[in-house]
Amino acid sequence: MYNKKMYQLGSNPSAIRDLFEYGKKRKQEIGDDAVFDFSLGNPSVPSPSIVNETLIDLITNTDSCMLHGYTSAVGDLKVRESIAEYLNKTYHTSVNSNLIYLTVGAAASLTISFNALVNPGDEIVVISPFFPEYKVFIEKSGAKLVITESNQETFMPDIDEIKKCINKNTKALLINYPNNPTGVMIDEESLKALCKLLKEKEIEYHHPIYLISDEPYRELLYNNKPYLFVTNYYDNSLVCYSFSKSLSLPGERIGYILVNPRCLNAEEVYFAVCGAGRSLGFVCAPALFQYMIPNCLGYTSDLSIYETNRDILYHELSSIGYEVVKPDGAFYLFVKALEKDAVKFCENAKKFELLLVPSDSFGCSGYIRISYCVDTSMIKRSLSSFKALYDSYKEV
Amino acid sequence: MYNKKMYQLGSNPSAIRDLFEYGKKRKQEIGDDAVFDFSLGNPSVPSPSIVNETLIDLITNTDSCMLHGYTSAVGDLKVRESIAEYLNKTYHTSVNSNLIYLTVGAAASLTISFNALVNPGDEIVVISPFFPEYKVFIEKSGAKLVITESNQETFMPDIDEIKKCINKNTKALLINYPNNPTGVMIDEESLKALCKLLKEKEIEYHHPIYLISDEPYRELLYNNKPYLFVTNYYDNSLVCYSFSKSLSLPGERIGYILVNPRCLNAEEVYFAVCGAGRSLGFVCAPALFQYMIPNCLGYTSDLSIYETNRDILYHELSSIGYEVVKPDGAFYLFVKALEKDAVKFCENAKKFELLLVPSDSFGCSGYIRISYCVDTSMIKRSLSSFKALYDSYKEV
Repeated sequence: MYNKKMYQLGSNPSAIRDLFEYGKKRKQEIGDDAVFDFSLGNPSVPSPSIVNETLIDLITNTDSCMLHGYTSAVGDLKVRESIAEYLNKTYHTSVNSNLIYLTVGAAASLTISFNALVNPGDEIVVISPFFPEYKVFIEKSGAKLVITESNQETFMPDIDEIKKCINKNTKALLINYPNNPTGVMIDEESLKALCKLLKEKEIEYHHPIYLISDEPYRELLYNNKPYLFVTNYYDNSLVCYSFSKSLSLPGERIGYILVNPRCLNAEEVYFAVCGAGRSLGFVCAPALFQYMIPNCLGYTSDLSIYETNRDILYHELSSIGYEVVKPDGAFYLFVKALEKDAVKFCENAKKFELLLVPSDSFGCSGYIRISYCVDTSMIKRSLSSFKALYDSYKEV
Repeated sequence: MYNKKMYQLGSNPSAIRDLFEYGKKRKQEIGDDAVFDFSLGNPSVPSPSIVNETLIDLITNTDSCMLHGYTSAVGDLKVRESIAEYLNKTYHTSVNSNLIYLTVGAAASLTISFNALVNPGDEIVVISPFFPEYKVFIEKSGAKLVITESNQETFMPDIDEIKKCINKNTKALLINYPNNPTGVMIDEESLKALCKLLKEKEIEYHHPIYLISDEPYRELLYNNKPYLFVTNYYDNSLVCYSFSKSLSLPGERIGYILVNPRCLNAEEVYFAVCGAGRSLGFVCAPALFQYMIPNCLGYTSDLSIYETNRDILYHELSSIGYEVVKPDGAFYLFVKALEKDAVKFCENAKKFELLLVPSDSFGCSGYIRISYCVDTSMIKRSLSSFKALYDSYKEV
């Protein structure tokens, strides 16, 4: 018969998707405005106008066979050159267009990287809370998923905990900042400590331990601090990027993998990336969206809307009495559940028409994730429900 | 270190790509017009105008967050409904939109199907000559590739040969008509005989043997015969489709998988497809190109150009003395090499600036593939080289 594991993955969509589907049904029952759906990380701010202007210009003024034809499997050279130039200028690094591989978005960036690196018996370490699909992608690549908890106060990596997880089988550590689901950005001290640990372990075990940085939220930072670009801190590193969130293009599937030129045998690692992409069935990233990139580098959707949403939710929920992790970026708020079992808490929240994701989905317990990539007006309307939910716990 | 198999696949691109790269270099040396590049299957005819018109209309008149946002993982419902309706009308079948899964093109359709079906120890049978990437995709899914030869006169499936290859481990048979590289379309008698054999073997081994039909060239048929749609002939069948060739959109990566509703446990097979797509990193097919589909179903690029190319090449090469397989469709011509070793023959052809792909790439020996998705003028200019190549063998 068919493959049972694949059947399981296909017939049990993520808890987040489940909640989103529940929300759609509920809205039909009681009206769109009466349901407060904070489930999905689907950008709510339009793409910057340069995106559609560039697409129309390309479609109108490029020869059809050129525009819609195959590009090189690694992506169009001029597009890769523009990305390298942009990254070098913006992050004061020295990446190389010949080590950039264009992908069909962040998920593909991750699966291709894992499949490029993993050999049987390898382990990949992730820090909880983490994006739930990491488990799916890592296990499909043949690696063992190893979970370590972040510091439960700051949600920074806990170096001592990570140290315990690294052994001779560790192939890679995966990080994601600004983080989904906490919104926290790693600070430089933590990043340096993490890299120091990995370097020590590389020497101890005589092989590279790759640091894979999943960066779809890189541009969604609200503190005006410079982004800490991983190639500047650690040699054996790969960046997995997507334009989904920065340009509000999650459905179009466009992103890239970058192999740090200072990686040991960087060119060989890059060839392994190419081979993984080839064998998983990624022929090239969508051509039209590749050609859009050079014009749109450095642009973002209007982030002030997300920032406004964050500020309202953070302040209002804190005032009500919720314990809220202050996010530096992304569009997620991580809030302590009012009972130990976050799943039960989220079930209870549904009575107040609040659709919140329990942190259990992200590999840790006791919290909920609020996606605030929604209309500001919905946030304002939802506040009385958050208050009523809070009060319902006081009464008990 | 990294995965060596992936490195091998990434650092050794296909012979076809190699030849294409050689062609680019050679053109720089002696001029574009002096090299006759028949290597790649990259459509040379523009997309029908409705494609770009629809894209511009969508971009201009759709809300940005709706247009560029995530679609359902299986693809937008209305798009899937339009495809089901079109297929049912065109092929007099009764497929179901809930069993259609939109993909990032044909390669993804295949890798997702293989990963959905394959368990350890399974075998997938392919009929040579076949598209070289089948080997890469099948082996990456964990299945064993089993090759059987087609009839060496007609290039139809050889039922007796296929029979010998099927055993208790056979999970699927993969077919591809019109065929790359021969251009041959299967006839109804052969298809029926093939399906009869598979049904007998299903009964013998008490499990489904899936017939996977890879159909990127479905609309590129020059004989005005109706296409033999596989769901009408065999229950446990899947169709892997791509709009790359019919609409000249190979770079945009858009296609679909269709599970036959008459498949045993069709819904479960479909869920396995969903799970495979999810775990390989295909979040959804590119949204803009999904929404383009309903308007463009039934349209094709101007196929008369390919037909003209076929006619010129078929008649002229036959007149010179070449033994040519008459193609019913696609844009490939399969020609007997003038020496036993087709690789050597193609090396020799380079002296006449003819870039031809040896059939060894397609799992059989003694032939060459000519991709005639090129300018008709290049074909005309190349004829004297084909003549000179032929004469060089007469002299020996």
